[in-house]
Amino acid sequence: MVLSGTMSTSNRQIRLAARPQGEVKPQDWEHADAPLPEPADGQFAGRTLAISLDPAMRGWLDDRPSYIPPVGLGDVMRAGSVIEVTDSKHPKYAPGDHVVGVFGVQSHAVSDGRGATKVDLGRAPASTYLGALGMPGMTAYFGLLDVGALQDGETVVVSGAAGAVGTVAGQIAKLKGCRVIGIAGGPEKCAMLTEELGFDEAIDYRAGDVRKALRAAAPDGIDVYFDNVGGEILDAALANLAMKARVVICGAVSQYNSSSGMRGPSNYMMLLVRRARMEGFVVFDYADRYGEAAAEIATWIGEGRLKTKEHIVKGTVDDFPDTLQMLFRGENVGKLVLELQDR
Amino acid sequence: MVLSGTMSTSNRQIRLAARPQGEVKPQDWEHADAPLPEPADGQFAGRTLAISLDPAMRGWLDDRPSYIPPVGLGDVMRAGSVIEVTDSKHPKYAPGDHVVGVFGVQSHAVSDGRGATKVDLGRAPASTYLGALGMPGMTAYFGLLDVGALQDGETVVVSGAAGAVGTVAGQIAKLKGCRVIGIAGGPEKCAMLTEELGFDEAIDYRAGDVRKALRAAAPDGIDVYFDNVGGEILDAALANLAMKARVVICGAVSQYNSSSGMRGPSNYMMLLVRRARMEGFVVFDYADRYGEAAAEIATWIGEGRLKTKEHIVKGTVDDFPDTLQMLFRGENVGKLVLELQDR
Repeated sequence: MVLSGTMSTSNRQIRLAARPQGEVKPQDWEHADAPLPEPADGQFAGRTLAISLDPAMRGWLDDRPSYIPPVGLGDVMRAGSVIEVTDSKHPKYAPGDHVVGVFGVQSHAVSDGRGATKVDLGRAPASTYLGALGMPGMTAYFGLLDVGALQDGETVVVSGAAGAVGTVAGQIAKLKGCRVIGIAGGPEKCAMLTEELGFDEAIDYRAGDVRKALRAAAPDGIDVYFDNVGGEILDAALANLAMKARVVICGAVSQYNSSSGMRGPSNYMMLLVRRARMEGFVVFDYADRYGEAAAEIATWIGEGRLKTKEHIVKGTVDDFPDTLQMLFRGENVGKLVLELQDR
Repeated sequence: MVLSGTMSTSNRQIRLAARPQGEVKPQDWEHADAPLPEPADGQFAGRTLAISLDPAMRGWLDDRPSYIPPVGLGDVMRAGSVIEVTDSKHPKYAPGDHVVGVFGVQSHAVSDGRGATKVDLGRAPASTYLGALGMPGMTAYFGLLDVGALQDGETVVVSGAAGAVGTVAGQIAKLKGCRVIGIAGGPEKCAMLTEELGFDEAIDYRAGDVRKALRAAAPDGIDVYFDNVGGEILDAALANLAMKARVVICGAVSQYNSSSGMRGPSNYMMLLVRRARMEGFVVFDYADRYGEAAAEIATWIGEGRLKTKEHIVKGTVDDFPDTLQMLFRGENVGKLVLELQDR
């Protein structure tokens, strides 16, 4: 085998070295080299093109009851990614195919195809298959339309509105005929929401009292609140619910790094006052309807009615830990993706 | 007019003198005498036989957004009661009739009949029309069956289980074929729940870790949690939800007297993990179905399949403030009623 500057000789991996206390620290990760994987019968192998970074990842690092088991100590970090097949002993995959799946934070992966889907990079870039056409898009779609039971003409508030899920959720709500208010951090993100994505209003949570701002922006109350952040913003939204409102619990990114425990919504009795409900969901439960959602979202993108926002960091697998921090610092706009460059 | 020892010459009233900070104090009430009320055309007047005491009363004293306006400063305290009509200029009511309605904490009342219902004290005592056949019974019925969407064979947990709503809710859940676990304070209440009311298990929240006790009592998780108390017990229940569970928010008696603000449920993200929903309701919304519920509950009582638990304090209107405190100290078992004796 001839070695060259662009040919990897090992599989670079990011493994979980320790369970983080509060914020994830560099020493919680191990940067390791493994042999390049070879496919067994019924498997294919490939090199990673793009890795998804998601707020939910923080929860996967903790050893407590959740919707999926935690990442094991010493295991390759779990992540969605797009790979290019380089070798295959699987009847449905051939070298050159592009595949999205949960292949982990590593430069090379092997798979039996479970949970994997072939994608066409001629139609959309890898980052979009991790964003609007991937889990964030599915999450926005089913969270709003199914859990939130969105109705035409309602007032919708989305927190984390400039994030991967929020950008799609707000635009879907607009496409469904709703008045949409986004909550995000900083004037640039807020301007992007209203000027570029068509949100009716945007509230900068760093600029003042979110509760008052919501009262001004939604004087008749919030019909659907799509929550990605938890904490004080969830409380501000609860204080402004309309009668029979639906609060969709999608995430709580403001709380994930808390070492003093989660903060509960002290205004939860507004659920009684406003005869409202708060409901959690996990997008995996909708796996058999992903096709339906992806088709509709792809149509909207094709028609220019839904804009994809992606924040692409170019680097290597070793940049994963630093890139992940950007999510919790609110440094990304739209879907955060680590695009791997040749090493 | 001849005065006698048993004839009142004035209408004794308990009025709200100040908005309580934390626990309600004696000086928050004014004990006052008003002229005996006389009915105008379309009204009837009566003397009060029994006054309802409800945990929700604490919320009515605070001037903040809720499902009904707060009691005004200087106003007679709002309360449900049963009165005996003594004088009437209303076509549908005659002296000697007994009527349940929101007549306030006063020895005499006048009404135009709005929200009032004639009752038959030959069929059930006044206290039952304030309990199992009154608002607490309606609350238990619609909270469990409508909001909780109770299904045969499910595991149901009721907090405040020895209270007015809890005793009825637990028994209805048993009648509907569910496994029922009650949470109450102290061994006597717990024994009453299992031995007298047929609960499958009872957990004494004063005796130890409720979260662990719930895990042992409901190893497959809680399908419906009917919450009357909030606070730590709500968090313990959230930690033990089954998939697709329903959390019915009926009250939060542990929090009503808090002067440091409500404590929110820090385990609310279990709603996501377990794809569960938490929903609040106000029984008034079911007013047009009270008849249906009361008929079914009356049948169960008549057949001996639902036992009424009432805690009757005999006294005068002046005993209202002290009696109300019993609710927040957990001193009552079942429906707490102040039965008025001749002054």
